[in-house]
Amino acid sequence: MHESGDPKAARAIDPVKLDRLARMALTVGVDLAEGQNLLIIAPLATLPMVRLLARHAYQMGAGLVTPILTDEDMALIRCRHASDHSFDQAPSWLYKGMAEALRANTARIVVMGSNPTLLAGQNSDGISRLNKAEWKAHRPVLQMTAGFGINWGKVAYPTPAWAAAVFPDVDAAEAISKLSDAIFAASRVNVDDPVAEWRNHNANLHARADWLNGKRFASLRFRGPATDLTVGLADDHRWKGGSSATANGRTITPNIPTEEVFTAPHCERVSGHARMTKPLAIGGTLIEGIEVRFEAGRLVDVRASRGADILRRMVDTDEGAKRLGEVALVPDSTPISRSDLLYYVTTFDENAASHIAFGQCYADCFRDGITRSPEEVAARGGNSSLIHVDCMIGSGEIDVDGIHADGAVEPVMRQGEWT
Amino acid sequence: MHESGDPKAARAIDPVKLDRLARMALTVGVDLAEGQNLLIIAPLATLPMVRLLARHAYQMGAGLVTPILTDEDMALIRCRHASDHSFDQAPSWLYKGMAEALRANTARIVVMGSNPTLLAGQNSDGISRLNKAEWKAHRPVLQMTAGFGINWGKVAYPTPAWAAAVFPDVDAAEAISKLSDAIFAASRVNVDDPVAEWRNHNANLHARADWLNGKRFASLRFRGPATDLTVGLADDHRWKGGSSATANGRTITPNIPTEEVFTAPHCERVSGHARMTKPLAIGGTLIEGIEVRFEAGRLVDVRASRGADILRRMVDTDEGAKRLGEVALVPDSTPISRSDLLYYVTTFDENAASHIAFGQCYADCFRDGITRSPEEVAARGGNSSLIHVDCMIGSGEIDVDGIHADGAVEPVMRQGEWT
Repeated sequence: MHESGDPKAARAIDPVKLDRLARMALTVGVDLAEGQNLLIIAPLATLPMVRLLARHAYQMGAGLVTPILTDEDMALIRCRHASDHSFDQAPSWLYKGMAEALRANTARIVVMGSNPTLLAGQNSDGISRLNKAEWKAHRPVLQMTAGFGINWGKVAYPTPAWAAAVFPDVDAAEAISKLSDAIFAASRVNVDDPVAEWRNHNANLHARADWLNGKRFASLRFRGPATDLTVGLADDHRWKGGSSATANGRTITPNIPTEEVFTAPHCERVSGHARMTKPLAIGGTLIEGIEVRFEAGRLVDVRASRGADILRRMVDTDEGAKRLGEVALVPDSTPISRSDLLYYVTTFDENAASHIAFGQCYADCFRDGITRSPEEVAARGGNSSLIHVDCMIGSGEIDVDGIHADGAVEPVMRQGEWT
Repeated sequence: MHESGDPKAARAIDPVKLDRLARMALTVGVDLAEGQNLLIIAPLATLPMVRLLARHAYQMGAGLVTPILTDEDMALIRCRHASDHSFDQAPSWLYKGMAEALRANTARIVVMGSNPTLLAGQNSDGISRLNKAEWKAHRPVLQMTAGFGINWGKVAYPTPAWAAAVFPDVDAAEAISKLSDAIFAASRVNVDDPVAEWRNHNANLHARADWLNGKRFASLRFRGPATDLTVGLADDHRWKGGSSATANGRTITPNIPTEEVFTAPHCERVSGHARMTKPLAIGGTLIEGIEVRFEAGRLVDVRASRGADILRRMVDTDEGAKRLGEVALVPDSTPISRSDLLYYVTTFDENAASHIAFGQCYADCFRDGITRSPEEVAARGGNSSLIHVDCMIGSGEIDVDGIHADGAVEPVMRQGEWT
């Protein structure tokens, strides 16, 4: 495998910090319980991280650790050689099985390190159908994680393909070294006590969410270059950020890194237009120069300078894919934004900028959210879809106002920073 | 990964023959139907074969190809770091899901290439419990394959660890080159038209099985050094060999290579003693110098010069693990036997020698077998167990007699060859 053929590249990653990152992802991130089983979802190229996670999980007293390793080349082989009927299929038996494991109190961690440009140049119709089939099959898993029914999390590993996409102008070893430094900084493991660092960071995010919850804004208005977008917030919405409680009694920080506070928009109360401030990577293809326009909550126009086909097919997945399931505020001064890199990975790029997400909302973004039924969520304007795809609309040029139910306006962010 | 770090080693495998082997495994072996989905079960180190299989399957019109890749190091990490309670667990949700896929007409192929000595020196109690949990969880899959409910097969790939075990005295590249030559020869792809070669070979095996079926022996008696074993055959037993029909209408040659004709013993009519003529590899450990004694079908004594613990725990899995589910005749002159190698992989070693198997019988080894229920199989003496483990008892020093119901004796093999 090309991913592992270069020992110099592997040496470019600081083993002490990598080990600390793996351990932190299981403690601060997933909050793995003693005796609990763990499911690891990972691309093959992240194998060293998978093995580190397994060792730490077992040392923490895990029951059974089961890695599901994805060979990214399978998608390429399929695009190049498969018959047309293949592209509407996904291994639903596998996702159903995973959901069954999660319902039986198995924790889940996803290792990020895919090749962001793997499928560039492949048939966009095939890729769109393949993604739709995957999202549909994946739904039982998404319900358990997005609903915070179980403890789950994500952690990054600097694979050669990812590093080459982020740092195209340096050699492989240097790219990996630079990406690993960026991951360690963003994941806050460059300190002696990452657990204390994360406790402090989570407290800051909780305080910001509490402030917004106290305001009970009816909507947010984003203004900046080519952008004037009003995002109505769902009834009984709740702002969240940092660590969360799960229904199985754990306290997780599912996204590492995380800098956002976020809530559920009202899926019928979004209007105006916006220009995305970052490209979007979907299933191995890059979509750039995205502009969108909404009326009464629904996407009525979407353009892109590159990859528009994939984007249009994505929002055609179902009715909810044309509506918003999340709005998030991220100041422009986060460590990730300051690194001034494009990571091509949502969990990183979304924490460099305020964003909206097409598709499924988080049930946990409502007061007493964990116990709310899908019907109760929908009645409050919460969106439902097979997909959940984040798009960045924030930058140092964006102002955000909070608008109260009586029309009173209050500044929330100016030039990308909290007021 | 160590498996891929040596480009010289990868170059030691003839790409034309490897490609031919992959294609033959899907046509002659699995008989993959157009539009059918395919499940590939494989250790990570066999990744080049997995990708070849996927490409050929898609080119043959497969629906969806889903590889389940096993990182063998996970077993080592578990043995070294896991808590005691971990060793009784297996991912039953995954096996149940696979069985669901098979019932929905998914074909299955297993890629052989595990490290035979991976777990040597690890805690034998933990390994035994781990194997038992795996066998139990795996049962829904075994029922679909051993019952010929679906088309399935196996194919080998010469991994570095396997090659090093078979050829410990040469360097890595030479070991891989030698093992790949041996695999290509045994799998009969060293000819221009492997399909015609296999048609002919299957016809020979069918003729041999037909001859034995015509005889309707009540039992077989094996005699040789430290061996005098009488294996009663099940009522209504059927000898099989080479290609088989499956319930979903395919014609498969599930084991590649294959040289055996085999049937179901009567699980209460085995008596005498035998010395195994080859070591046995179970879950990464080697068991050597095995001697066994049976009374009324049941194993009453088992010894081994190495690994006896693992062996004893294996036969303690359940009652059926102490009884026989298969008896197979293989002449000593097969290409595999002539190579005079120990492969540490059952599908190869069992085709160098006559053998018996502890555990589950094949429902297909009864007249009209495919449609018989487990109760009907049991009523005829067919054995039932979580396990199916082959042990070699044949060699050039073994004579086999067929014994008729009236006590008449007829020679079947002399000094390891058909009479």
